[in-house]
Amino acid sequence: MRILIDAMGGDHAPKEIVKGTVHAAQEWDHSFVLYGDEAAIKKELSNYQYPEERIDIVPTTEIVYNTDDPAKVIRRKKDSSMIRALKDLKEDSDAVLVSAGSTGALLAGGTLLIGRIPGIQRPALTVAFPKDKGMMLLLDVGANVDCKPLYLQQFALMASVYAGNTLGIDDPKVGLINIGTEENKGNSLVKETFPLLKESPVNFIGNVESRDLMESDADILVCDGFTGNIILKLVEGLSGYLFSSLKGSMTQNTKSKVGALLLKPALKEFKAKFDYNQYGGAPLLGIKSGVIKAHGSSNHVAFYHALRQAVLFHENKVIEKISDLTKKEKE
Amino acid sequence: MRILIDAMGGDHAPKEIVKGTVHAAQEWDHSFVLYGDEAAIKKELSNYQYPEERIDIVPTTEIVYNTDDPAKVIRRKKDSSMIRALKDLKEDSDAVLVSAGSTGALLAGGTLLIGRIPGIQRPALTVAFPKDKGMMLLLDVGANVDCKPLYLQQFALMASVYAGNTLGIDDPKVGLINIGTEENKGNSLVKETFPLLKESPVNFIGNVESRDLMESDADILVCDGFTGNIILKLVEGLSGYLFSSLKGSMTQNTKSKVGALLLKPALKEFKAKFDYNQYGGAPLLGIKSGVIKAHGSSNHVAFYHALRQAVLFHENKVIEKISDLTKKEKE
Repeated sequence: MRILIDAMGGDHAPKEIVKGTVHAAQEWDHSFVLYGDEAAIKKELSNYQYPEERIDIVPTTEIVYNTDDPAKVIRRKKDSSMIRALKDLKEDSDAVLVSAGSTGALLAGGTLLIGRIPGIQRPALTVAFPKDKGMMLLLDVGANVDCKPLYLQQFALMASVYAGNTLGIDDPKVGLINIGTEENKGNSLVKETFPLLKESPVNFIGNVESRDLMESDADILVCDGFTGNIILKLVEGLSGYLFSSLKGSMTQNTKSKVGALLLKPALKEFKAKFDYNQYGGAPLLGIKSGVIKAHGSSNHVAFYHALRQAVLFHENKVIEKISDLTKKEKE
Repeated sequence: MRILIDAMGGDHAPKEIVKGTVHAAQEWDHSFVLYGDEAAIKKELSNYQYPEERIDIVPTTEIVYNTDDPAKVIRRKKDSSMIRALKDLKEDSDAVLVSAGSTGALLAGGTLLIGRIPGIQRPALTVAFPKDKGMMLLLDVGANVDCKPLYLQQFALMASVYAGNTLGIDDPKVGLINIGTEENKGNSLVKETFPLLKESPVNFIGNVESRDLMESDADILVCDGFTGNIILKLVEGLSGYLFSSLKGSMTQNTKSKVGALLLKPALKEFKAKFDYNQYGGAPLLGIKSGVIKAHGSSNHVAFYHALRQAVLFHENKVIEKISDLTKKEKE
């Protein structure tokens, strides 16, 4: 298996990307290919001892930024680390790709260059979310802003295969994001999706209200990409805001400052629980090859975990299993 | 002016409802009518000194619960405090109504019994939301789960009139909830709503991402009722969850317990900032009479504030102003 790596994607590229890759190469017997600025990558690699025969470099001259228009990246940044890696991925059935770069570009590039799994209507963006006990997958979080019930049903199917085969969750529970728990609640999209999920070969546990998000039993939560993106960004924004307000309240006076100091370890632990980084990457589900998106702010530990998910994704034949299920559904 | 009050609605009815009403009657020269269980209301009233000639009781025998099907309440609970008050409201152009009871029933009853303002497509549920500096209005939060662009435009118009005339916000800023700040972002609903808001007589400041909710400049945020309900419940659920997790972290050991004790005043103040109660009520916008929904968990202070908003709503002729604007828009 070859693991193709966008060494220039993410806030801490190439430093943390290379460090995470070296860590992975020391642990597993796979081949790693780093796409990006050759000199910069070599400089980072020179800091480590690693199995040289298993880390290759493909030199590229361009970088895809978050500010680039995703739809235009394929044509305009042909020699970027992300696009070169995607093109090589297309030709290599024994490869997977990991990138911490622009989500939009990866989605557009992955969909257009790699193509969809036959029978899958729309690829979905997934995110791994911390919850009270463990984590859950939320999808779609922005790839498809206008959805049909069939898309949501397929999101549930794909995420169930993924969670079962790479996250080790046995018979993952699927919830449908809704504004009430009763079957007849919601907008027309979710009302029509509910019966489809009931008859699907997934472990559907019903509607889940956003107020119960953190304490839900669900391992997978499905929704349209508009709703998912609203939820994702609200959780990020609100928890960030609450933490910083709390900090402000804590440094008001000497008494509260002493209190804050005593509480520091507890607060650090509390904050770590909501750190997305520890959850590594999330897959782009529905395309014909394995593509794992690592969080943009990934450090080497987060990137290593994303690489690990890519390996499990490939070893456990997630795409073949999705493809088989989709065929069966059609029959 | 008569203020009709559903004395049986809310978690702390009739005790806190009556207490808030007495407080209001001591301050203002209006007439108050309490609908509900006569004996229970009289018992509560006997605790206070108040202008007896200005607080009347209309005895009713039934109560609308949150578990009642809103669509069936009008027929099945004809003698409930809420439905009786709504029916009297319809006949009295110089009255407003305040209830802390079931939102769904109030919406259904208000829409069916009172009727829409001519030209208004759909009434909207509004909620007053704490934000970093002051508060903002979010609508629709659940009355209309499937919306058209025109509905959202009208929500913005109605909320602008309300905010300007009852909350004292001069030229309130309107934001459109979206998944990006650029004009071309979003699902088809918000993409079509954007140009409508641009040409509306409201102070439209563009798209607002959910991650910026708490720190947005907007005084009013519009969205469809599905999205609004998801946001409302996520903010409630997530902040509740974060507070309780934080509490858990703080009582882990002696050191952190001492820290928590020292921080108590700061934390209390912090929590109060996110207390919905202080923001009183929110209007049901778009129907022909003034209906203010107080929070279900309202104590007497919150209910008093809701009564105050009802008075301002009526005194400042919010409905007439909405009606005039709608006519002008049509021309």
